[in-house]
Amino acid sequence: MLSNDLTAMLQIDYPIIQAPMAGGITTPELVSCVSEHGALGSIGAGYMTPQSLRQHIKDVRKRTSNPFSVNVFVPNAFNVSMEEVEASVNQLRPIRKALGVEGGNPSLPTPASMKRNFEEQINVILEEKVPICSFTFGVPPKEVVAELKKENVILMGTATTVNEAILLESKGMDMIIIQGSEAGGHRGHFLAERDQSLIGLMSLIPQVSDHVTIPVIAAGGIMDARGLVAARYLGASAVQMGTAFLTCAESGAHPTYKEAILNANEDDIVLTKAFSGKWARGIKNTFIDDMKDYTSVPPFPVQNTLTSAIRKASADQHNPAYMSLWTGQNPRLATDLSAATFIQHLVQEVKVITR
Amino acid sequence: MLSNDLTAMLQIDYPIIQAPMAGGITTPELVSCVSEHGALGSIGAGYMTPQSLRQHIKDVRKRTSNPFSVNVFVPNAFNVSMEEVEASVNQLRPIRKALGVEGGNPSLPTPASMKRNFEEQINVILEEKVPICSFTFGVPPKEVVAELKKENVILMGTATTVNEAILLESKGMDMIIIQGSEAGGHRGHFLAERDQSLIGLMSLIPQVSDHVTIPVIAAGGIMDARGLVAARYLGASAVQMGTAFLTCAESGAHPTYKEAILNANEDDIVLTKAFSGKWARGIKNTFIDDMKDYTSVPPFPVQNTLTSAIRKASADQHNPAYMSLWTGQNPRLATDLSAATFIQHLVQEVKVITR
Repeated sequence: MLSNDLTAMLQIDYPIIQAPMAGGITTPELVSCVSEHGALGSIGAGYMTPQSLRQHIKDVRKRTSNPFSVNVFVPNAFNVSMEEVEASVNQLRPIRKALGVEGGNPSLPTPASMKRNFEEQINVILEEKVPICSFTFGVPPKEVVAELKKENVILMGTATTVNEAILLESKGMDMIIIQGSEAGGHRGHFLAERDQSLIGLMSLIPQVSDHVTIPVIAAGGIMDARGLVAARYLGASAVQMGTAFLTCAESGAHPTYKEAILNANEDDIVLTKAFSGKWARGIKNTFIDDMKDYTSVPPFPVQNTLTSAIRKASADQHNPAYMSLWTGQNPRLATDLSAATFIQHLVQEVKVITR
Repeated sequence: MLSNDLTAMLQIDYPIIQAPMAGGITTPELVSCVSEHGALGSIGAGYMTPQSLRQHIKDVRKRTSNPFSVNVFVPNAFNVSMEEVEASVNQLRPIRKALGVEGGNPSLPTPASMKRNFEEQINVILEEKVPICSFTFGVPPKEVVAELKKENVILMGTATTVNEAILLESKGMDMIIIQGSEAGGHRGHFLAERDQSLIGLMSLIPQVSDHVTIPVIAAGGIMDARGLVAARYLGASAVQMGTAFLTCAESGAHPTYKEAILNANEDDIVLTKAFSGKWARGIKNTFIDDMKDYTSVPPFPVQNTLTSAIRKASADQHNPAYMSLWTGQNPRLATDLSAATFIQHLVQEVKVITR
């Protein structure tokens, strides 16, 4: 139950991966604590500059010599018109005002700037000899796969359907993370439409397991030993847990954010693209309500940049109303333990329930 | 793994319940075959007249002396205007024409007619001494619960969230069926909104199990031994399987419907209320596409009655384009075995994987 081909391949004790949550959550303290205690810590580098990523890697390495992974976002082409941006800026203006957000608008990402940042992130991963790299939002470019494979970096792709998993395997991934509909944060679908990609793990794990030969890692709403054992029986080699680590002491999530998850119920949680231009699952709040009739949100990552100052101001004011409170569908099981204790309890409980 | 308090209480060998799919699927052959082979067969009486329900019960009893259950729909108040009905009739007219549907419009159900039919169904259940009764779409009236309990009928409610489960337990249910987002057919939410009720079983089972004291039955996308064992580890006492039995030989589902499921992928499946006025999960087809911009569908069960002749004509013509092809999210695991063989394989496989 606790060791298999995947744990051997990743050189970890337990088939538990801390999800690479982007946006300041995966502090070096969290990542190193997880890796130091037998699971796999992951740096969520999605929004990081190459410089910041390099510093994070060095800071993790100072604290542990065990393996860890870095997750990057596969850059995708997007189109946005000035009219769309202006409409969004106008829509957000009263919220900025209410929160006292000062200053002009930030410089907006472009497909070219995203691609450049991604390539620089990959260079950092190569230079720093990161052992494991995971990708979200699509298939990484062929040359990137080849470069990383040459240096024996283990590659993980993220899929939400059987067809996405099959494609990622054919493009050289060594493992597949499958994101169930239960998962918090951004949806990782890239072939399927949003609705067709919202497949519960109870259905997704066995179907994907039957159709790929590489190890499958289940992600979405898994919070304890029951979820880990269930995922293993369904066909997964390991689990990737986000929300469960987000509320841990070492996580960099804002205290107001942790508090919101610890107090949430499973039916407080919705899908929205209001924060970032990409569908994501989180706790319903004033911002989501305010934006619900505003349907033409600029695409990711443009809207994400446009709402950045609002989310930051809301957090600075300890006000959950305008923060993106991403969470999976299992908030009632969240704890505020240290990641070390969390992993120890989890492993102990797996042994108890499978005795 | 295969026996517990629930199997003792229901007097069955295995913690497997054939879901009470309405609309002609749960033939006496299917229900009795399931009950005869150690699982619990269920009559989906939702749309049945009291006379038809009585005949079904007698026909099941001719074939097995083992326990079986009857499922009924809790009647809910609804409002519909003549304008809404006319708009729907107009919308459906070209489809009726294309399929050559003759005749006028059927008489429409009213809240009073639904309530009367429900009360008569309950009388049949009492008179025929059915041992187990399950409810969908809400909390049954207090008097009905009292009458059934007086005769020692075991009662099951259907929930989609923790709060719905807690309410059903407090209203006297003996067991809770929890419907995950993976489930095919109609959504059973009655407190939560649709989106908030779409919770994957990986998250729903542990959260509900932690908050009720009565046995929990997991439903949605469970098709084989992997799903059964996973559901048990997550905290469920049993599983309820719909799609898995729908494609079995004894099921009354139309051959075109079975064929559609056997050929479907997990990402062909969508939620729609176009067929019945209530959200339900099924395979995307021409009818769903045709209706996607038509948002003001009359409420359930009025729209269900209005589309009845279309669905029947489409089936008679072996044309899946206008049939309601309800299925869970795990169609790749569907088989065309007999229900007896299906149960035997399933039980055998549970023993193998938990050895």
